Amino acid sequence: MVRPIKFGEIPGFEEEHWFRDRKEMMPSSFHRNWGAGIDGNGKEGAAAIVLSGGYEDDDDLGDVIIYTGAGGNNPDTGKQVQDQTWENRGNAGLRLSMDQGLPVRVIRGHSHKSKFSPSTGYTYAGLYSVVDAWEEKGKSGFKICKFRLEYCGLNIKRALPEHTELKNLHGETQRKSGTVLRIIRDTQITRGIKKLYNFECQVCGSPVLTQSGRYAEGAHIKPLGKPHNGHDSSDNVLCLCPNHHVMFDRGSFSINDDLTLIGILEGRLTLHKKHHINKTNLEYHRKSHGYN
Amino acid sequence: MVRPIKFGEIPGFEEEHWFRDRKEMMPSSFHRNWGAGIDGNGKEGAAAIVLSGGYEDDDDLGDVIIYTGAGGNNPDTGKQVQDQTWENRGNAGLRLSMDQGLPVRVIRGHSHKSKFSPSTGYTYAGLYSVVDAWEEKGKSGFKICKFRLEYCGLNIKRALPEHTELKNLHGETQRKSGTVLRIIRDTQITRGIKKLYNFECQVCGSPVLTQSGRYAEGAHIKPLGKPHNGHDSSDNVLCLCPNHHVMFDRGSFSINDDLTLIGILEGRLTLHKKHHINKTNLEYHRKSHGYN
Repeated sequence: MVRPIKFGEIPGFEEEHWFRDRKEMMPSSFHRNWGAGIDGNGKEGAAAIVLSGGYEDDDDLGDVIIYTGAGGNNPDTGKQVQDQTWENRGNAGLRLSMDQGLPVRVIRGHSHKSKFSPSTGYTYAGLYSVVDAWEEKGKSGFKICKFRLEYCGLNIKRALPEHTELKNLHGETQRKSGTVLRIIRDTQITRGIKKLYNFECQVCGSPVLTQSGRYAEGAHIKPLGKPHNGHDSSDNVLCLCPNHHVMFDRGSFSINDDLTLIGILEGRLTLHKKHHINKTNLEYHRKSHGYN
Repeated sequence: MVRPIKFGEIPGFEEEHWFRDRKEMMPSSFHRNWGAGIDGNGKEGAAAIVLSGGYEDDDDLGDVIIYTGAGGNNPDTGKQVQDQTWENRGNAGLRLSMDQGLPVRVIRGHSHKSKFSPSTGYTYAGLYSVVDAWEEKGKSGFKICKFRLEYCGLNIKRALPEHTELKNLHGETQRKSGTVLRIIRDTQITRGIKKLYNFECQVCGSPVLTQSGRYAEGAHIKPLGKPHNGHDSSDNVLCLCPNHHVMFDRGSFSINDDLTLIGILEGRLTLHKKHHINKTNLEYHRKSHGYN
């Protein structure tokens, strides 16, 4: 029997939790796949990876990890002996986690060559997000699938993506011109709503097609954070394509209680029968953007 | 004569730079507008604001500032006496800075009620980005235009948006589910390319319409950061709508040297005669996503 896949933190396993061996990771579904580095598949996404030094092209910078996908290597030597593919279930899983904003538990093994690795057993490094996926010729000359993972976990003292980015990417000159960011958050709640709509935008009906499937964004109707203090709850979230997300956040359009659109868009919001929207949130959005 | 507007850092004025008075900010164009809080307009954007305690609805959290727009108050008492409008040049300027990703210099005056304010004169707080704009009824009962600004400047030790967000928004429960972020960067280079195309997507020709005008994103062809190490230079940047930006970054389509599209999109990239693209970057993108 295969246990169901579990995403995110699992109670009882804090960052730096030590496992004697990989078998210990199985009862909790922390990592269900004894023999493989990636726990996941192209239908559900990948929930966990183990860095075990099996690949010669990995690069572990701590809070940023360049990870080589699965397949094509000799398990004894770690050498690539043939091309990797995106159809490999682990690689397909990591690509889906990127598109759907699913967090990945990262575990470092003693055989993984990195100053962050334990001397024996395995340690849990925390939650990471997959922010990039691409292919290249590895050191071996074979095609390998690669991923960039960035720490996105609980410990706010650890360098978050922005820090790493600012340090690595931007010289003084560029930073002096001011690098402005737009940030899209994916939470358990937004992921649920996006799935309910099969990643189709509630305004235009279109999904954004990616190589792993479909992409959409969760938009909070009443924004999170001060001073709005909207909730991250399903009655405050819409599934939108990125273009309509930008327009909604900026008030180019808003939504009446009967779900008709107002502003520069016409039409009506699609609503799934299992999705209840709190109308006070719609009213808040209308008032915030001058639709009264 | 009005001096031209200047965005970003200005040489010679570090963070915490102290100005005796507002007149001192004028020769360098640090803030050109003696009498107003906002230096800018709806055509160019806003480049600087002074917090002077003139508005009763401001809220200064340090690296996050809730700022009240211009107009409608009695300059002697700071009390609102009529509605503010989005047509006001300063408010229109801040809204445009949000949509175009322009950085705003923030200056705190001695009369601004905040623990960060100087006891006399004015101090420079650094570059901020405008991340939200909305309207509400102020304490006075009149309509006010409000903005959320987040620090985006040089000092990487200062709390960056992500830190603030994670601390303020996410309880343990939510953070345990893993909040994954997608981040869009705006640099001086991407701003230039977007302007060249008048914010029209080089793939679909459409701008995303906002209340202040138009929105587009700068997409790096060869990605920034390890291990790609692409450059933030105009020959490596495209102007795309958010939907096509997501698809391009994920390799749903790529671009041949003759600018025809490959992958799940057909057609041809629009290229402005002043925009030179480095073809080795296009080749890098094709190879990264399996188009050979």
